[in-house]
This record gives sequence, structure tokens and C-alpha cells, in this order.
Amino acid sequence: MDHPFVIIGGDAAGMSAASKARREAPDLDVIVFEQGEWVSYAACGMPYYVKGEVGELDDLVAVKPETFRDQRDIDLRTAHEVVGIDPTAQTVTVSTDEETFDQPYHSLLIGTGARAIEPPFDGLDLDGVFTLRSMDEAAAIQRYVSNAKPASAAIVGGGYVGVEMAEALTERGLDVSIYEMLPRTLQPFGEETALTVEDHLREHGVDLHLDTAVEGFIGEETVAGIEHDGGVDDADLVIVGVGVAPNVELAEQAGIELGPTGAIATDEYGRTNYADVYAAGDCAEAENVVTGDPDHVPLALTANRAGRAIGTTVAGDPTETGGTAGTAIVKAFDLGAARTGVLDEERAREAGFDPVSVTIDAPTRPHYYPGGSELTVTLIADRETGRVLGASMVGADGVKRIDTVATALGSGLTVTELQNLDLAYAPPFSPVWDPVLTAAKVLAGKL
Amino acid sequence: MDHPFVIIGGDAAGMSAASKARREAPDLDVIVFEQGEWVSYAACGMPYYVKGEVGELDDLVAVKPETFRDQRDIDLRTAHEVVGIDPTAQTVTVSTDEETFDQPYHSLLIGTGARAIEPPFDGLDLDGVFTLRSMDEAAAIQRYVSNAKPASAAIVGGGYVGVEMAEALTERGLDVSIYEMLPRTLQPFGEETALTVEDHLREHGVDLHLDTAVEGFIGEETVAGIEHDGGVDDADLVIVGVGVAPNVELAEQAGIELGPTGAIATDEYGRTNYADVYAAGDCAEAENVVTGDPDHVPLALTANRAGRAIGTTVAGDPTETGGTAGTAIVKAFDLGAARTGVLDEERAREAGFDPVSVTIDAPTRPHYYPGGSELTVTLIADRETGRVLGASMVGADGVKRIDTVATALGSGLTVTELQNLDLAYAPPFSPVWDPVLTAAKVLAGKL
Repeated sequence: MDHPFVIIGGDAAGMSAASKARREAPDLDVIVFEQGEWVSYAACGMPYYVKGEVGELDDLVAVKPETFRDQRDIDLRTAHEVVGIDPTAQTVTVSTDEETFDQPYHSLLIGTGARAIEPPFDGLDLDGVFTLRSMDEAAAIQRYVSNAKPASAAIVGGGYVGVEMAEALTERGLDVSIYEMLPRTLQPFGEETALTVEDHLREHGVDLHLDTAVEGFIGEETVAGIEHDGGVDDADLVIVGVGVAPNVELAEQAGIELGPTGAIATDEYGRTNYADVYAAGDCAEAENVVTGDPDHVPLALTANRAGRAIGTTVAGDPTETGGTAGTAIVKAFDLGAARTGVLDEERAREAGFDPVSVTIDAPTRPHYYPGGSELTVTLIADRETGRVLGASMVGADGVKRIDTVATALGSGLTVTELQNLDLAYAPPFSPVWDPVLTAAKVLAGKL
Repeated sequence: MDHPFVIIGGDAAGMSAASKARREAPDLDVIVFEQGEWVSYAACGMPYYVKGEVGELDDLVAVKPETFRDQRDIDLRTAHEVVGIDPTAQTVTVSTDEETFDQPYHSLLIGTGARAIEPPFDGLDLDGVFTLRSMDEAAAIQRYVSNAKPASAAIVGGGYVGVEMAEALTERGLDVSIYEMLPRTLQPFGEETALTVEDHLREHGVDLHLDTAVEGFIGEETVAGIEHDGGVDDADLVIVGVGVAPNVELAEQAGIELGPTGAIATDEYGRTNYADVYAAGDCAEAENVVTGDPDHVPLALTANRAGRAIGTTVAGDPTETGGTAGTAIVKAFDLGAARTGVLDEERAREAGFDPVSVTIDAPTRPHYYPGGSELTVTLIADRETGRVLGASMVGADGVKRIDTVATALGSGLTVTELQNLDLAYAPPFSPVWDPVLTAAKVLAGKL
């Protein structure tokens, strides 16, 4: 290989690929171009930095740039923006403050990530209005809370970033309101879980404005209020968290194909329509293990794993990136909520299934043992085949049990097979019938 | 069906079968003969009753006898001992304090359970020497600790009952010693997990005598010491917990076949060599999901599930009892330990596998998030096929993750498939790479 393995983007997918390729093929040159200064950071930790549980923003950095450079021998170039890809010539065009140059590549990985969606709200540029996608934004929010001492916060969007920020800002002493366009928060988690989380948010003083369309933000220079279809409320701080969009423009301009979700289409090895160009992470699609269709689930594990697999492939050992079950978990004050697979009945029907679901409440420990709590489990399966399609759960304890269902999805288990799993029981950890087994028992009775 | 469904034994397997058969076939008569007075109780909760965390022994009873009789319409007869089975005549002979009679059956379930093994130790009948198998024994130990105020306890056997009782009696203020014949405690959990638990037991003041053969107990009337191949130690209370033996004598005398483990042989529906005679629970074998061989793992979930399945079958809907992965979990003071599948390399080789294993330490939460701890995970797979064979884990937090591996075993996943599972990640719950995934990654690199 004369030319290096070039990677665009120095976060989860890119740095996982760089590290793995370097380790597996020590003779391979690896160059990473990152337009910003932060690399390999845990974006999912940012709400806990704002909350005050993580002392320094630097604590969120998994591996420092100098470690990549000095110890892993990776040519990591921050403040280098890739402005063009020529897949025929096998070069990328790179721009810095000082120069623009072409870099040939042997293999290319596009790991450009996603950006926060900014709807056309009035007043988005007022001081005190933030999205939460980059480390710089996390730092800015933290400074703003400490210095401007806002009394109230409006969070636009009731997804998991919205819920996590509601907890963080409440903990910092602000009066928090969430504005959500849909009738429910945490839409991907299903109605039963969302209702429980919403009650809990209200118990912690969070004001919920559901079915509410935000129009914009008002104020001189600094934000002072939020306008929506129900009126105007005070707001000294605004977080806009209405979702993310994959950064695909660079790929698209180079003739790299996008998939049905709008993210970059990839095969099982993470390859795009050019055999030597890969894409991974929040800018790329992954196969949904339940439907078999391309999906766009911009979460950290998918990015890390696909990057690692592509690094292995580029180093000479073709390795599949693995699919996604859309597994997600979120903390809201004292509750946890988790989901995996296909929960939406309409989406299940579109994928050719006949969905049947149950929701059960079950204790996480036997009634006689201290410290248990109720776990609400929703389980959904296909009526004809009995195949498990997805699950959601919510409770003060034990929501990591979603992994049992995620594993069942990865194996294509039926409800009967799920019900027959030999899960761990002892009073300090579980009732005899784990809540997942109880849900499977009840669902099996409905099939 | 002219004759009833007769069940011998009123605990997990028996009462699950009775309840399920009654619900599915309301016209079916169900009679349960239980030789004692306690039914449907959580034997696994007994150490926590002795410890003082469970207020009343009655709290361990899942469903009370009168509930079975009055609300579930089950003819439950306590203090009724079945003394003979005639599978040709399809009758059982029942003995009470007052009479002996024959009861015809349509279908019969043998759920006679297991008993504590009592090695031929001298002094087993001294006051203050107990096993812990029955509720009456739990009550007696509790009374003895409260009334006789023993200062020291000797626990014979370092299995999970021994470990749980060490915690319980330490908590009650006794100086506790464990005597184990083997070089390690918790033998089925593997060496790495056992070593961690042993260090932790010592930190909590438990004195471990490993590789030590107990010879007997000394004292007038009341126990005062324990004799072993290393000498004599004081002991005011002795718990003998060296394992259990299935109660198979009744079955054996009736010509019902035992399997290679010495427990009653059953097919996938829990049937014995007589088509209308079933066996389930601690007296019966179950198929090991990893080896496919008959196994004897006397644990609560297997008993409950098999009983429930047999109840369904007897009611007219043939239902498989499900296998066992030998999944177990135990608390030792502030640590949890768990295991599933085949961990013993010799046993794996006997089953035709070429075992390869790794042991890793991984955090249960990201380094920057408060409250995580180290989890030590041992994962074992077959070199040729990559199939996952078993796992063990130990740590202060998160050992219920064993369920992920138990689910993988139930599905026959390979290490690569395990590594590619989409498990749940958010900082309050897990690092990006769940410890199970990390173990799979490392093991995949060794295959």
C-alpha cells in the first residue's frame, strides 16, 4: 500500500478505525483529518458535565490527541477540514488556516458524524440559545449557567437529550420546561414508557408542554422568552434538542450514494458504492437486525463498532460491521428507561410483521427482599412466527435488562424461546421469574 | 379424564404445575400431596431470614395453602406422604397419621425435590448442628442464634449456601469460618470469580479453611467444636451445606428410570419412561442447553418453569419444559458473582469442545461517571466453531449482565455474534462497550 488509510472525522468511528487498523497492520500509514480540536470524546457524557457530575470537560475525552500521535503512531491532524473527495482519483482535498492540499488515499473512511438540527426558529442567534452537539457547546452552556445565572430554562424537544438536560438543569437550580411538538416525549421508547417518565419529570418540577409547536425565541441580545402556539413563556436559557441530521454533503458532492434514511448507504462491511470508500458512525446507515432494512440510529456503540470493523477490514481482514437494534437507554432523575428493536406497530406492519404486544409490571426483586422496585416492560412480537420484535422498559432499577431482549433480537428468538431462557435468579438480584421472562410468558399467552 | 392429575410435592415444580393445569383445564381435578406443612416457599430466601432482612418466615411463602385451596380450587393435602407409586395400576399409595390409601391418577408429577447431603460426620446430631434445606431448619437456626447466642459458626461447604450463610451469620455478629474440601469455594463459578469472592470474604472477617476435610463435631449435647484434618476449632454453631441429593427413592422403587446424574430421567416434555408420569424440579434432570446432555441443576427457575410446562401439557397443550444453562448468581457481602453454561474446561472437552477462555476487568460505567465499579468477566468459547460455552463474572455492581450470556447460550451464538450485539449504552448505566462485549472482543482475538 503506497498511499495511507485516510479518515475524515476524529470521533468514535474515525478514531476506532484508526487505532484498530494501526494495531492490525503496523506498516499501514493512517491519517485522520479532524476539522475541530476535540477528538475521541464521549458526547453522551455532556449532560453530566453540565449537571456538575463530571468535573472537567477533558474528563470526557477517552484518548487524548497526543496519545494517538505519540503512542499509537497515528497522524492525527486537528483543524484540518476535508472540503472535497475525488473517488476516481482517490484523493481528498484538505483545507487549513494556512493552505489547501490534496491527499491521496488507499482506503478512505467517512466519519463526519451528525449535527444538531436547527429548525427555522426566530431568535436562534440570541445569547443563551444553544444546541448540545459539540464539546464547545457543552462548555458554553456550563459557563452560561454559572455566569449569567439563568432562573428558567426552555428545552425544545423531548427526546433523550431533552430529558437528560432537564435533569441536569433542574439539578443546577433552574426551573425547567420541555416543549415537544408530538403528544409524547421519548417517542422511540413507546407510549407506556413515555407516560411513566413524564409523570416522573413532573414530580421533579419539570413543566411539560406536549403537542406544542415552538415558533421562536424573544429578547434583546439575550434570550428572555419562548414563543409557541400556546403563548409566550419566560426563558433565560434555551436548549434546542430536536434531533440530528447526518453530515452527508461532502459524500453527496463526490457521488457517494445516500440510502433511504438520508444517511450514507453502506454494505455489511461499511463500504459505500466505491469499494475503497467506507462510511461509519452518525453519518452512515446500518442494517436493522429486526427488519433487515437500512436504518439510521446515530448512537455511540454502532459508531465505535463499525469503525473498529472497518479498521480491521482495511488492515486486511474483512470484518462485518454488525447491525443495529436501535437499543437505547436514558436516565431521568431516579428512573431509567430503555428500548430495543421495533416498538412502533405501524413500522412493524410496514416491515411485514403482524405485531402483538403486552405491557406488564413486575418487581425487580422478590417481595420479601429489600430494595426492589417495579419495572414496567412492554414486549412486542410477530403473531405468526412468534419472533420477538422489540421491547421497552422503565423503572427505578434494572432497566439494563433490556440487553436480554437486545440479545434475543440479535438471535432472532421467538417469545417461547425467550420465555425458556435460563436467566439468573437469587433474591438480591431478581425474582424467580425475571421481569423479561414474565413479559414473555404473558405475551406467549396472547399469540 | 376420570382420574385426577396427582402431584407429589408442594413446592416450586408441584404448585406451578397444579396452578397452571387448573387454569388451563378448569374441569381437571388436581390433587397435591405434600408430606410437610410448608408449600410454595422461596428456599433461596432462607439465608436472608437468618440474616434478619426478612421479618417473618411466612414472608417467604409465595402463595399460602388456603389460597391454593380456596381461590385456585386445588385439592392441596399437607401432611400426606406418598409412600408408593404403581405406574401400571396408575395409583399412588398415600400415608397420613390416620390412614393409608390408594389414589388413582390420570397423570402423575413427581416433584419430590432434593435433600441436603449429610456426610458421615461424627456429632451430626449434636444441638447446634444444622443443614439448611427446609423452612423448619431455617426457623431452628434463627431461634438458636437468638437464644443460644453462639459466638462462632463453622460452615461446612463453600458453595453458594455456605457463602450466603457466612454473610448472614457475620451480620448477626458471629465469627464465621468456612471449611471447604476443595481448593476453592464456589466451584461452579470458576477460579477467577472464586478468588475474588474469597478475598472479599476474608476482608469481612470470614476465616477460610480450603483444602480441608472435616471429620466431625465435638461437644456434650451441644456442639462446641469442629474436627478437621488440620486440627480442632471452636464452633458454637455448625451449618452443613455440602450440596443436595435428589429425592428419587420413591421413583426408583416404582421402576422409573434415573439418568446419568442420578436424578430422574425426563424427555423434553418432562416425561419419565412412563408416558403419564412426569418429573420436575430438584429431583429431575433437565437438558443442558450447551452440551445437549442431561444435567442436574437443582435451582428454582428450572423447577418453576418445568412445573408450569407440565401443567400445560397435562391440560392438553404439549409444552416443552426448556433446558438449563446452569445459570446461578450469588451475593457475598458487597459483591455479586454469577455464572452460566460450561466453565470447566475438562467438562467442555468431554462434551466435544475445544475450550478457549479469557478473563478481563472492565468498568460498569465510564471512568468519568460516578458510581461504577470493576467487573471481572471470564468468557469461554469453542475454538473451532466460535460458539460461546459459558461465562462467569464478579463485581460490586452489574453481575446480572450474566443474562446477556445466558441468552447467547440459549441461542447458540458465536463470540463474533456476541461481540456484535447492540447492547444498551448511556453513562449512568454502562460504558460504550459493555463488559460482556469487551470480553467477547478479547476472546474473538484469541480464536
